[in-house]
Amino acid sequence: MSASTTQSEVERFEAALLKAPFHRWLGLRVKSVSSTMIEIILPGREELVSSPQFDATHGGILATLIDLTGLYAVRVAGGNATSTLDLHVDYLKTAKSGPLTAVGKTVKLGRRVSVAETKVYDSAGVMVAAGRGAYVGRD
Amino acid sequence: MSASTTQSEVERFEAALLKAPFHRWLGLRVKSVSSTMIEIILPGREELVSSPQFDATHGGILATLIDLTGLYAVRVAGGNATSTLDLHVDYLKTAKSGPLTAVGKTVKLGRRVSVAETKVYDSAGVMVAAGRGAYVGRD
Amino acid sequence: MSASTTQSEVERFEAALLKAPFHRWLGLRVKSVSSTMIEIILPGREELVSSPQFDATHGGILATLIDLTGLYAVRVAGGNATSTLDLHVDYLKTAKSGPLTAVGKTVKLGRRVSVAETKVYDSAGVMVAAGRGAYVGRD
Amino acid sequence: MSASTTQSEVERFEAALLKAPFHRWLGLRVKSVSSTMIEIILPGREELVSSPQFDATHGGILATLIDLTGLYAVRVAGGNATSTLDLHVDYLKTAKSGPLTAVGKTVKLGRRVSVAETKVYDSAGVMVAAGRGAYVGRD
Repeated sequence: MSASTTQSEVERFEAALLKAPFHRWLGLRVKSVSSTMIEIILPGREELVSSPQFDATHGGILATLIDLTGLYAVRVAGGNATSTLDLHVDYLKTAKSGPLTAVGKTVKLGRRVSVAETKVYDSAGVMVAAGRGAYVGRD
Repeated sequence: MSASTTQSEVERFEAALLKAPFHRWLGLRVKSVSSTMIEIILPGREELVSSPQFDATHGGILATLIDLTGLYAVRVAGGNATSTLDLHVDYLKTAKSGPLTAVGKTVKLGRRVSVAETKVYDSAGVMVAAGRGAYVGRD
Repeated sequence: MSASTTQSEVERFEAALLKAPFHRWLGLRVKSVSSTMIEIILPGREELVSSPQFDATHGGILATLIDLTGLYAVRVAGGNATSTLDLHVDYLKTAKSGPLTAVGKTVKLGRRVSVAETKVYDSAGVMVAAGRGAYVGRD
Repeated sequence: MSASTTQSEVERFEAALLKAPFHRWLGLRVKSVSSTMIEIILPGREELVSSPQFDATHGGILATLIDLTGLYAVRVAGGNATSTLDLHVDYLKTAKSGPLTAVGKTVKLGRRVSVAETKVYDSAGVMVAAGRGAYVGRD
């Protein structure tokens, strides 16, 4: 845990994250938070597999992780993000099933629209996907 | 069902679709197939909600639908698509929970890379998201 | 020219378009305007070539066309668009040098952010690129 | 110039870059090259302005810079990149007219498709745009 993370901040953002039923079903956890980034862990579960033959996590799940981690990256930076405007994902390597770690950082903290970049790593530390989202907040 | 769809084609693509554990968990069904498009239905389920307050389907689920529908749109057009290279999603309206219909069409059928566009409609026929994916096949 | 286009609207939007020095250098012209779409023509010029060997128009020029045509598509639909938030382009075919026609349509007319899709055709009517932009206006 | 750049490499990639008529018209120069990144400079010129009122460089020019710098980032990393498959650009700040510096890095060096990220800075060192391209090479 980095020096800038306090346990109470991790708990606060994890509680906010887990208000969403889909996030609870995924079993997401917040690993660390600072004023510029957030790390979120997705444990593996067998329903998330897309190809049993290649034991690969579904690309939609990687997109989901990039979407939600970027939104929380804007929030930890003090931005107002409640919904996603648009999302882009690059798939870099096949993501084997198992735990994934998503690291999100804010690129633009805007008055109306904010942008965050997120990278997703497998349990061996290999980056399997990267992407960005643009987020807006309610007035 | 359009004139160009036969029941056996619908069944064949639905069987292929449901080999993925995540697709089975989502309860996806193929509604229609032609040589240029595919319609896929996602029934609602309560785990897919992102915001209980707004009863909204999670953006990651919409991204998942656009990803997989585009991949199958390339396949019904005769293309070789086994994995997604990159994905872009525009979120247009809040998608209330409930069944969603995704309509995918191939934009580019390439030797190495194909591109498909997918639009997602809610049960009232309102387009709630649109996006595109670039897909590659195994040699 | 479509029934919904008047010559004065074409002239009004072309005059606005040509306030930008880069648009003047490109020699852009407005071909038609309706409340839902705009067609813009880029005449060929030899400086726009990227590969002399393949006589191809530079991908950045296609991106430029998609960017600006989408912004004007939002404007003809009554939206407030003054700058681009983000842009996505799919390159579908090599665009030979020569005149190109860009057709832009609004997908989402938002209070804060609008989205437009643009397709670019070569002089033979073949779609060579397609993309979308998200646009914001000044308050 | 970084330790890993030799003057001959800079000259070699600049010569390749300037085979494109559009790159010559833009007056591009290669500032530095290493096995993982390339820096390219675009001098200002008055034809590149989109809004005289705000003295802003056209968004299409920023997209052009991201497109071509990413393609060369793949090449300096040893990848085979001859054309762009798709391109995404985030506009972060208004880019005032004047020289811009684009820094491209390869994210994925693939057998068929490579991905590079590029950031564009103004003369004060402020990042004004960021984006990525996916590139393919001829067989």
